[in-house]
Amino acid sequence: MKQLSDLKTMLADAGIKPSHQRLAVVRFLADNLIHPTVDDIYTGLLPEYPTMSRTTVYNTVRLLEKAHKLEALTLDGESTRYDFNTSPHSHFFCTLCNRVTDLPVPDLPDAPDGFKVKAVHLSYKGICPECAANQS
Amino acid sequence: MKQLSDLKTMLADAGIKPSHQRLAVVRFLADNLIHPTVDDIYTGLLPEYPTMSRTTVYNTVRLLEKAHKLEALTLDGESTRYDFNTSPHSHFFCTLCNRVTDLPVPDLPDAPDGFKVKAVHLSYKGICPECAANQS
Repeated sequence: MKQLSDLKTMLADAGIKPSHQRLAVVRFLADNLIHPTVDDIYTGLLPEYPTMSRTTVYNTVRLLEKAHKLEALTLDGESTRYDFNTSPHSHFFCTLCNRVTDLPVPDLPDAPDGFKVKAVHLSYKGICPECAANQS
Repeated sequence: MKQLSDLKTMLADAGIKPSHQRLAVVRFLADNLIHPTVDDIYTGLLPEYPTMSRTTVYNTVRLLEKAHKLEALTLDGESTRYDFNTSPHSHFFCTLCNRVTDLPVPDLPDAPDGFKVKAVHLSYKGICPECAANQS
């Protein structure tokens, strides 16, 4: 778990005023690396923060995304999920349980000549080991 | 360019009633493999279809997406682009000119044991050859 002071510093570095509710959002993201949607974050925080609104959650994740502190994922073509894990990894989206699993990034060949690559995103869709075991 | 009859059949196969305006949207997508946004499609069609609405364009691409006839891409974290090219390819998103280039898919190592992969998505972000040449 990251220290609250680290999260405050991260918000300040991103030019985001570290209000009580914004800190709650970023803490939820740091403590729950489950690729949550805005709704997941809102629902998770509501018991402790009854005055939290979906708009506050949405605005906070958008500010963090614009500051490149998290990544927005649209793996299922439906919902946007937010990923606070900034170390290199790929994603596996299970079409049965809708869960997203972080996987290592394999060695990839270079892009064709002339393309200057700054970032690579790799994601898989399919069936995760748990669901595959339940099917057999 | 695909024949209009092929596009009508494709819509029918997807369970989508091939109205005049829906056919115009799908024809635009087939003729313009530029990963257009809803706005690009709407603007492109407006001179010939002055009664076309953004909502019709949006609803048509969503129906096609749900029928797996095209793919929604969110490469820049901002706009959703639609890709009618269903052959295997990866994407290169240029952060300078915002254009998306189709690239071949390199050989990728298998996913870890237990994960049953149905689809792989690979995208790059960086600077395309044209923009790189303009910079130097």
